[in-house]
Amino acid sequence: MSKATLTISSKNYSSWSLRGWLLCRMAGLDFEEKLLPSDDPDIRAELLLLSPSFLVPRLTDGDVSVWDTLAIAEYLSELNPGAGLLPTERVARAHCRSISGEMHSGFSNLRSALPMNLKARFPGFRIWAGAQADIDRILAIWRECFEAHKGPYLFGAAPNLADAMYAPVCTRFLTYDAKLDADCAAYCQTIMALPHMQDWVTAAKAEPEELDELDVEF
Amino acid sequence: MSKATLTISSKNYSSWSLRGWLLCRMAGLDFEEKLLPSDDPDIRAELLLLSPSFLVPRLTDGDVSVWDTLAIAEYLSELNPGAGLLPTERVARAHCRSISGEMHSGFSNLRSALPMNLKARFPGFRIWAGAQADIDRILAIWRECFEAHKGPYLFGAAPNLADAMYAPVCTRFLTYDAKLDADCAAYCQTIMALPHMQDWVTAAKAEPEELDELDVEF
Repeated sequence: MSKATLTISSKNYSSWSLRGWLLCRMAGLDFEEKLLPSDDPDIRAELLLLSPSFLVPRLTDGDVSVWDTLAIAEYLSELNPGAGLLPTERVARAHCRSISGEMHSGFSNLRSALPMNLKARFPGFRIWAGAQADIDRILAIWRECFEAHKGPYLFGAAPNLADAMYAPVCTRFLTYDAKLDADCAAYCQTIMALPHMQDWVTAAKAEPEELDELDVEF
Repeated sequence: MSKATLTISSKNYSSWSLRGWLLCRMAGLDFEEKLLPSDDPDIRAELLLLSPSFLVPRLTDGDVSVWDTLAIAEYLSELNPGAGLLPTERVARAHCRSISGEMHSGFSNLRSALPMNLKARFPGFRIWAGAQADIDRILAIWRECFEAHKGPYLFGAAPNLADAMYAPVCTRFLTYDAKLDADCAAYCQTIMALPHMQDWVTAAKAEPEELDELDVEF
């Protein structure tokens, strides 16, 4: 059987691609990347209309084709339960899926006002109130996890689905100079220091610039 | 242990409440409803700011508190695998989660332009192009399911997670007089005829009208 393939778009801009890719790496999947060209009209159209879309991320694995980040996560978790994408304890598992789902469907102000852009740094960026309300909710979610599971990751000693879902948020907080308390700032550093994240960021910084004109939500 | 509680908001307007409630019913859960009052300032604020939110739907079951519709679905599926919320076959299960996830995070044009409103009928409603693109994608998703699984539900003989996710869309298509082919129109009728749906719609029609001024996405 041919190797699994994960279809993604820009590593610098596509936060959904990052989530799907991190999940595949965390699950230990042996996969190839298929990077959709950002100058493809279909891709441009999709990037402009739809944020979490049916084109990226998409995982093809044998006879399975699964798109949407949470569906990919559940698929990978069934494929390799030992990878720990989901907590084994039921209360924690329900909590992990809840905050992952909240990220999946919410925080539209954050997404549109602070799009992921790994190459950029905006010291002193002025964050508008709507996006700040999203940030406040995210920090409350994180603090509740730190209290329950004692870090360094959201559910304890190892990264899981929830960390993958919030990883692009960590990059945004750095890019847009969000004000964070010590625990949340340390968490962002922990996520950025993950070897998988470092691999992704290195590749993002090497991307050509043709997407820089797109003034859209990713 | 006390009975499980599902927190919801307006039955006429809250499509996320409907999804969570249908899933609980489909899973055979013995639960009480907690209807948040729509004149509560926190609820109004949440309805105005956030669509899929952390207040509704929320399921409390013993020591588990789970919010977000997909997280509730996964919780219920683990609680009662025999209820068939997810297909047992892996390719179909990945497909079911993919289209459920796509509904969960997408279709924002449809949601804002055609909010759920079970009491209303607008014959000849003029649907703008952005919402029509969402409708076209939804109909393509449905047709692919009918082709693979032969109906009458999206994954065959019984309703599952995907039907619960798309049930509010069926009500919107009726409310806003969307043009449907015969198979898709028949599917909407099948969903509306589900006893659980009839129970919900009856309760929605009996709701007082205080929310009617809210011109927002639910």
